[in-house]
Amino acid sequence: MKLASLNQSRDGELIVASRDLSRGARVSDIAPTLQRALEDWDRLAPRLERVYAELNADRCQEAFDLELDRLHSPLPRTYHWADGSAYLNHVQLVRQARGAEMPKSFWADPLMYQGGGDHFLAPQGDIEAISEDHGIDFEGEIAVVTDDVPMAISEEQAMSHIKLIMLVNDVSLRGLIPGELAKGFGFFQAKPASSFSPIAVTPDELGDAWQDGRVYLPLTVHLNGEKFGEPQAGPDMIFNFPRLVAHAARTRYLGAGAIIGSGTVSNPGPEGGPGKPVQSGGVGYSCLAEVRMVEKILHGDSHTPFLRFGDRVRIEMFDRSGSSIFGAIDQQVVRYHRARSTA
Amino acid sequence: MKLASLNQSRDGELIVASRDLSRGARVSDIAPTLQRALEDWDRLAPRLERVYAELNADRCQEAFDLELDRLHSPLPRTYHWADGSAYLNHVQLVRQARGAEMPKSFWADPLMYQGGGDHFLAPQGDIEAISEDHGIDFEGEIAVVTDDVPMAISEEQAMSHIKLIMLVNDVSLRGLIPGELAKGFGFFQAKPASSFSPIAVTPDELGDAWQDGRVYLPLTVHLNGEKFGEPQAGPDMIFNFPRLVAHAARTRYLGAGAIIGSGTVSNPGPEGGPGKPVQSGGVGYSCLAEVRMVEKILHGDSHTPFLRFGDRVRIEMFDRSGSSIFGAIDQQVVRYHRARSTA
Repeated sequence: MKLASLNQSRDGELIVASRDLSRGARVSDIAPTLQRALEDWDRLAPRLERVYAELNADRCQEAFDLELDRLHSPLPRTYHWADGSAYLNHVQLVRQARGAEMPKSFWADPLMYQGGGDHFLAPQGDIEAISEDHGIDFEGEIAVVTDDVPMAISEEQAMSHIKLIMLVNDVSLRGLIPGELAKGFGFFQAKPASSFSPIAVTPDELGDAWQDGRVYLPLTVHLNGEKFGEPQAGPDMIFNFPRLVAHAARTRYLGAGAIIGSGTVSNPGPEGGPGKPVQSGGVGYSCLAEVRMVEKILHGDSHTPFLRFGDRVRIEMFDRSGSSIFGAIDQQVVRYHRARSTA
Repeated sequence: MKLASLNQSRDGELIVASRDLSRGARVSDIAPTLQRALEDWDRLAPRLERVYAELNADRCQEAFDLELDRLHSPLPRTYHWADGSAYLNHVQLVRQARGAEMPKSFWADPLMYQGGGDHFLAPQGDIEAISEDHGIDFEGEIAVVTDDVPMAISEEQAMSHIKLIMLVNDVSLRGLIPGELAKGFGFFQAKPASSFSPIAVTPDELGDAWQDGRVYLPLTVHLNGEKFGEPQAGPDMIFNFPRLVAHAARTRYLGAGAIIGSGTVSNPGPEGGPGKPVQSGGVGYSCLAEVRMVEKILHGDSHTPFLRFGDRVRIEMFDRSGSSIFGAIDQQVVRYHRARSTA
């Protein structure tokens, strides 16, 4: 099943999307918002599935043409957004670029930070930023959405609480990260609002690409219309999603609608070292920081710039037949005009 | 105006409480939840204020006797919970106890971490914990609630977005903190669900105790029925609430219902060193970690234990006439029984 939210209120209006993303159907008689559907998932999901089946069979009378740019993130806001860093290749590169070793414990204990969930960006809306000097970057990731998760559950139990999967652009302000991490309390200003793919899908939609709590498909990233990366999301994800959910729930309950992210999708090169850019025959990257770190490791200096106002990033994932599963995150970076928001 | 939420659904039912906390009035015809009231505050607050005036004048026909133990936290869940650490005496003691200096930049740039807002505890409900070995601690704090806050506002503008004030028990698992901070991504498992005072109040309720964006009253903490601390919340708060709100909003919008906390209320001793316990004539502390740090600094070792199952902590604040402003946070620590939550 594929679900989305029309961008027309704080929580959006829940709709069901057809498998090919061409058509949508309103379902406010079942649940007005995705948040509400997740709060009563076992009861409501079968009713939403029936609409989905009718929509795919072209038997849904009230169906409308789906325009992805009218959609908000599937959860326009959430009570819990936590992002892991499960592709340790990314973490290793960060460390290597500054001449530090990654602690061995990182292989056994997931990194995770708590993000702000009150104000996500629309998947095809602008990324407002104050200054190019903040080192604006994208991070292509995958995320899962849970129903209510009890505290201290096992990984096996966690798997059953994963209800939806979507893509993420975890916008990051690289210039603010060193100062914040030095303070010891983790990311805050360095992680402004994220956006999610227009469509969230149930795990069964991925077929055998959903295995062991991982998505075995490439994540395709374009920067200003040129392919920037196509890293495999499956094999190098050291901690799978059930593990990340169990980590998040170790000492507290997670409320329905909790979003747990994978961290930046990242593959090492074939020989285990830093991977190559797409132009050199590699799978490329899903964030600018990574190519900059590879440049620094290989050449002593980074030359790829961070995002400038006007730059556009596109993040999507295709199934093996070439169809877009989640619709594209497609965003332009724009200068924040204070007057607009206070009006 | 004083507001609260009946503990009967995920978001509670908004009620107005009388100034003396003896009576309540349902206001679902104005707003079903506090979250909804904050989303349309300028329009709805005047209507809630009228109910408050009637309730205080004993002219509210549907008023009922208020039982604080039937209340949830004013916002039982929120999309944004960020906690500062504005009492730098607390931070200095942490550092001093482990033989480290506090960086000078801490006096100019607030510490703040993002907490999980999906599942707050009820103010007079249990604190469920998995293990006493986690070093269970309370932290007495003050927090403000905002309406929608634009990105990158000034401190002056931030002041106008502070709509409500309440108390916090920021439950902390001290044993998990060193490991998490060493990973560099900040607190996560070490900060399980917090609770808030039964009542949230508009700033005008504090009269001249609300000055310069600070609350100039003592915070009273009892542990197992004995007074543990009565630190002054005003003078040693290095960053006031507008500053903390502006810090949180520097690179992103804050959605209505955002909660920004002060961090552990803490006073230095009269000579500037570590403050004394209540039993020795000092103002005491609002968390166990602090008395343990003072013990370590003075005697080389900590002897006060962290919380055990069955321990009870009470956090409240009285006005100058001795009346409880917010009602008491009054919680017992209990062992988490997994079966109960998965049932």
